[in-house]
Amino acid sequence: MAILERHDSGAIAHLRLNAPERLNALSDEMLEALQEALDRLATERQIRVVLLSGEGRAFCAGHDLKEMQQARQAPDKGAAKFEELFRRCARVMTTIGALPQPVIALPHGIATAAGCQLVAACDLAVAAEGTRFGVNGVNIGLFCSTPMVALSRNLPRKQAFEMLTTGAMIDSDRALELGLINRAVPAEEQMSEAMALASTIAEKLDTAIRIGKQAFYRQLEMPLEAAYDFTAEVMVRNMLDSDTDEGIQAFLEKRQPGWKSG
Amino acid sequence: MAILERHDSGAIAHLRLNAPERLNALSDEMLEALQEALDRLATERQIRVVLLSGEGRAFCAGHDLKEMQQARQAPDKGAAKFEELFRRCARVMTTIGALPQPVIALPHGIATAAGCQLVAACDLAVAAEGTRFGVNGVNIGLFCSTPMVALSRNLPRKQAFEMLTTGAMIDSDRALELGLINRAVPAEEQMSEAMALASTIAEKLDTAIRIGKQAFYRQLEMPLEAAYDFTAEVMVRNMLDSDTDEGIQAFLEKRQPGWKSG
Amino acid sequence: MAILERHDSGAIAHLRLNAPERLNALSDEMLEALQEALDRLATERQIRVVLLSGEGRAFCAGHDLKEMQQARQAPDKGAAKFEELFRRCARVMTTIGALPQPVIALPHGIATAAGCQLVAACDLAVAAEGTRFGVNGVNIGLFCSTPMVALSRNLPRKQAFEMLTTGAMIDSDRALELGLINRAVPAEEQMSEAMALASTIAEKLDTAIRIGKQAFYRQLEMPLEAAYDFTAEVMVRNMLDSDTDEGIQAFLEKRQPGWKSG
Repeated sequence: MAILERHDSGAIAHLRLNAPERLNALSDEMLEALQEALDRLATERQIRVVLLSGEGRAFCAGHDLKEMQQARQAPDKGAAKFEELFRRCARVMTTIGALPQPVIALPHGIATAAGCQLVAACDLAVAAEGTRFGVNGVNIGLFCSTPMVALSRNLPRKQAFEMLTTGAMIDSDRALELGLINRAVPAEEQMSEAMALASTIAEKLDTAIRIGKQAFYRQLEMPLEAAYDFTAEVMVRNMLDSDTDEGIQAFLEKRQPGWKSG
Repeated sequence: MAILERHDSGAIAHLRLNAPERLNALSDEMLEALQEALDRLATERQIRVVLLSGEGRAFCAGHDLKEMQQARQAPDKGAAKFEELFRRCARVMTTIGALPQPVIALPHGIATAAGCQLVAACDLAVAAEGTRFGVNGVNIGLFCSTPMVALSRNLPRKQAFEMLTTGAMIDSDRALELGLINRAVPAEEQMSEAMALASTIAEKLDTAIRIGKQAFYRQLEMPLEAAYDFTAEVMVRNMLDSDTDEGIQAFLEKRQPGWKSG
Repeated sequence: MAILERHDSGAIAHLRLNAPERLNALSDEMLEALQEALDRLATERQIRVVLLSGEGRAFCAGHDLKEMQQARQAPDKGAAKFEELFRRCARVMTTIGALPQPVIALPHGIATAAGCQLVAACDLAVAAEGTRFGVNGVNIGLFCSTPMVALSRNLPRKQAFEMLTTGAMIDSDRALELGLINRAVPAEEQMSEAMALASTIAEKLDTAIRIGKQAFYRQLEMPLEAAYDFTAEVMVRNMLDSDTDEGIQAFLEKRQPGWKSG
């Protein structure tokens, strides 16, 4: 069995973390598999939305602590290894945001530390009710510093700070209130709900979604005037797409668009 | 009938989009009228608060798609026209934020695409219950890239991303929860509620509101220390205003202030 | 009686504003006492969490208006004095964020103007139910420009703008919804609830909390990629701490960690 499984359903790719006995820990092997899968997806025009879930009783419980402890045997006490690990993990997270396709996390069970980061780093999240989220590294002396980058860009400041310093878990209802996830549904409806959301997005004009996702994160980091200058250019490019011409024309003529690219 | 009507009530100016048959689309003519009206308001010391509403069954349904499609006849397929349009529209939006007076949006019916952006770009919003908000350009192949600049500075990240990629509508209750609006009231109370809010602000010392609004958006784009340096200077200037002297003195003496500027 | 009292309980320091007859106004004397106390705390390794409360019927009602009005007698009409005051106040606020230890505000009664800023500037806040929060300087002609720096980094934009321009109060339930505070509990449980939260944090590995708090605010001001580069380095440093080694090892061996630093 591969540590990361991929099953496609039409234009929707489904990645499943598959190391249930280790609660889908982000081991070297898992991070490498994720990076590879994401890099491949980035080149695949036929895929329009990506789902990310975990096999077993947890979505993802964070880093692989056993593997990390073993690295301490090295002459540098693991320094080089840790640096590589955290950079690699951060690269997986930023690759999700940079991926042309929207990525929907499907957390269930627990999503903790780098596993909570993974949810925060995805564009959207449909959780199973009862999922517990936490950035609990602080409980064992390792503050969730990289996870907080994604977390603090999803949640209000004081609520993120509380989670980080107390290590306390929040449930799916609270995660919904705070903005960490988009939906919390009964476990048995999680996949159908996520597929419905994915299908809604997959039916849009592909180029529009790709242009839009990329622009979304870029403009967020700009001052207001620069953000408007940038997105105005993005809109012009979008308008000059012949499929957009068709989309608008079809709307004005009250008919379905005949899109070449989808 | 003018495409943009203005009615003043004391220190409160009320702009009303008046192209109901086109759902108050932000056509060239409408944007020009809005820019002109805002530029004029910026020079009028007697106006302290601006209301912005729409005539007919919608607040504003976004750009004028027919007009945009006509521009495709040009040799450059509309490129120059689209560039001008999106820059002009962005300028109207940033002018609202740069206006010395607070601007209150009064959305009702629907506020979609650039119409939703207009709500987000205003300083405050009092909606009629039942108003539906959406950035639904993606449904016709045109991602709401400029609207997302304003939207993503009002809403949590994942919720903004969902609206942009699904094109789904949210109702006024959800808009209130997410921070897109300040109030949702029954339609028949919308104007009185907005007027009450406007009057509350209009009764404040005018210079304090003007200084404060300008500083609000500027400091938001600064790092923390720079924001404090900047606002500390703003406070000093505010303190040296003789009306502020009077305002504080009156408070200490438990009497009403006798402000020269109102 | 000192204007600022400090009582330690183990690793938790409790600062109490003690000018109840002036609603704990941030006078020159109070700001100086606060700055001094915070600077001292920054050097004290044995203190792990700081509580900040107010004696009497209010947490803090903002600046000392009488003192400010007296400064107008100077030849420069108070300009130098005001500049010093707002810089000093801003320095107290930024010192809280820069303090190695988390600071928990315990607002009760009223927290207005710079008193509301004090709540916003703390890392966490446990309020007494019924506390009223406001940035009401605008009511007397002095826009809460420095308070808005902290407020607008805690609250959604339109809600912060409304508070600043209307001067209206919000209650503790609304403050909780908007993200200004972490908890609202009955007055008689406020201290025990805050102590429980403080104890939870104080039991964590001290170096992890210190590293984490500092990194939290720094990464918030960085673009995404820079934030990940920075926090990845922070994680490496954290991993190389021998107590973190022990913390992770103890977790893997299902036993309590034997931390040297506590």
